[in-house]
Amino acid sequence: MTLDPGAGANRAPARPDKHFHRIGSFEPELGGSLEEVKLAYETWGELDASGENAVLVVHALTGDSHCTGGPSEAYRRGGWWDEIVGPGRTVDTDESFVVCSNVLGGCSGSTGPASIDPGTGRPYGMRFPIVTIRDIVRTQKRLLDDLGVRRLRAVIGGSIGGQQALEWAVEYPDFVEKVVPIAATGALGPQGIGMSEIGRRAIMADPDWQGGDYYGTGRSPETGLSIARMAGMMTYQSAEGQWERFGRNPASRPALYEEFGGRFEIESYLHYQGRDLAGRFDANSYLYLTRAMDLYDAGAGYASQEEAYSRIEAEMLFVGISSDWLFPASEVRETAERVRNAGAEARYEEIECKSGHDAFLKDWDQLRAVVGPFLND
Amino acid sequence: MTLDPGAGANRAPARPDKHFHRIGSFEPELGGSLEEVKLAYETWGELDASGENAVLVVHALTGDSHCTGGPSEAYRRGGWWDEIVGPGRTVDTDESFVVCSNVLGGCSGSTGPASIDPGTGRPYGMRFPIVTIRDIVRTQKRLLDDLGVRRLRAVIGGSIGGQQALEWAVEYPDFVEKVVPIAATGALGPQGIGMSEIGRRAIMADPDWQGGDYYGTGRSPETGLSIARMAGMMTYQSAEGQWERFGRNPASRPALYEEFGGRFEIESYLHYQGRDLAGRFDANSYLYLTRAMDLYDAGAGYASQEEAYSRIEAEMLFVGISSDWLFPASEVRETAERVRNAGAEARYEEIECKSGHDAFLKDWDQLRAVVGPFLND
Repeated sequence: MTLDPGAGANRAPARPDKHFHRIGSFEPELGGSLEEVKLAYETWGELDASGENAVLVVHALTGDSHCTGGPSEAYRRGGWWDEIVGPGRTVDTDESFVVCSNVLGGCSGSTGPASIDPGTGRPYGMRFPIVTIRDIVRTQKRLLDDLGVRRLRAVIGGSIGGQQALEWAVEYPDFVEKVVPIAATGALGPQGIGMSEIGRRAIMADPDWQGGDYYGTGRSPETGLSIARMAGMMTYQSAEGQWERFGRNPASRPALYEEFGGRFEIESYLHYQGRDLAGRFDANSYLYLTRAMDLYDAGAGYASQEEAYSRIEAEMLFVGISSDWLFPASEVRETAERVRNAGAEARYEEIECKSGHDAFLKDWDQLRAVVGPFLND
Repeated sequence: MTLDPGAGANRAPARPDKHFHRIGSFEPELGGSLEEVKLAYETWGELDASGENAVLVVHALTGDSHCTGGPSEAYRRGGWWDEIVGPGRTVDTDESFVVCSNVLGGCSGSTGPASIDPGTGRPYGMRFPIVTIRDIVRTQKRLLDDLGVRRLRAVIGGSIGGQQALEWAVEYPDFVEKVVPIAATGALGPQGIGMSEIGRRAIMADPDWQGGDYYGTGRSPETGLSIARMAGMMTYQSAEGQWERFGRNPASRPALYEEFGGRFEIESYLHYQGRDLAGRFDANSYLYLTRAMDLYDAGAGYASQEEAYSRIEAEMLFVGISSDWLFPASEVRETAERVRNAGAEARYEEIECKSGHDAFLKDWDQLRAVVGPFLND
């Protein structure tokens, strides 16, 4: 078990701040095993002598470990939470040692389906074991242990990151002081699962998917992944927000797909979003991570969600988004209530906006206003 | 121009009640031309001497002309509105001459992309011209003229059928007495367009689609059409209804797709719905008819929707569905208000339910309660 900065270089542009850490072998809770797991991570700020000033920031489905930093060659859009994480910001890197790692099963440096299986010398593909939110959290814990973190001031994340935050509170109750699950609940509803399954079917129906063994073939299921992304994007936005932003405006960019397409701006937007993701994300990771979202049930392994929640010692702040369709605000609020009823301390705050689920990646003022006082009291 | 019962037999089981009528050539409003258009239709009841006791029932996206009748060999589920249309029912076939025709661009007997282009002797495929809601209505008008109908007591339909009903009121103001658009507005929103585009992309990405020229090749884009149907089904139901019906229950049927799938009931349900449609519907018709839905703008060709609505002479009843996500109730209500503000007579009623958009195909009691008094006053 070694801290191994710079190992396992990937194909992306040089990313000097990204480190790679081998946590050794790992047994996913639903079966299978991984001989050698590596996590890509970044840190900001300094860990103090107590090892208790750390904050774990958890990324969303297609995010990565680069949660803060301005635009650069390696990260043309900069860090995905640059408005929230940094010196003097809501998650204050002057005060805290901030860690963000790419999730197990991901494709931005951590071990996932695109990684080489040491047992065969070939990429795992669909032989990668199913991983769960709990597995992801357990590997994060190993990383933090190895980094010398003894306790977390906070865990914070949205969407699948919010599921991880909640699971942190349940799985490691005495390790975390404050937990902020944003736009997440203890279990995704059938509408969300259904939308994910549409995306998975589109990937698997793409002949370039090749049963998941597309690595090194010169072909990959970009079309299927694009369609999956289009379906995902629909769940990240609200009807009202789309009316305002796209309406029925004609496409302002040339159609990506000549046949019959590209008439409306919303279509053009979805095409470009799809192509963008297909150029930067691994389709098998998309399958595994959406499945982890579907499968997450905070009560799994306990008699009930209530029993799981009764373990929680952290102060919780659940943040709902009024226009969220994937994790509706009403369900986030209900989760907070169930946690409170189970005896834990849990507040609920709501971001009022038209942005939909994606508000935690764009409505900065409201997010700061809601999260800042809780984290920095 | 001949009434031509039984002509143009299709591949389906014998359907003795279905008639086929040639309306001759037709020029779609957005260009192209169709040399010979045929509409499949059925009628119930008797047209009286005045020719003014007819009711036109308009089907939804994947429906057909068989709106009433019990289960039979040809129609294993019976008529799609058997609870609404029949002797003594809300649309009373004892009192009215009821006509229902398969839409232009469809695949249940009427001319569509699967039809033979007389100019080439081959199926149109994607050489079929874009058809609009107005085109569909204009061809229906020709059929009714040829059947001897001089005025309609009512036009009624839901979803794309509701768009047609509204267009009837605008296009032929002095031909219709009452019009009932259900779960439809003057223009579909970007979320609905986006969901349709996901389905279209899935069809077109299927290698068996072959640019639309799959007829007679022994292959057709069933996988793509299945995925399109899955996306469609999501828009026909509500989050609350899906929680109640599917929750996070495990799949009760074997998975249709082994890889990674079939864990949840909602997934299994979507798989089966997808496969069912792929077995009975033409993928190109799906492309053309969803595009007609997207393109519909009641104000097209007028200075505004208001100008279009000011033409209306019929009494209108707009029916919204409280849990509808495709045509939200708020937008249906707003359409009714705009029609009223334009000087026409328009009421609005709402079906309160968890069924989502599909309520007009299942919540019979409420539908009858709302529509019956309006039609039969």
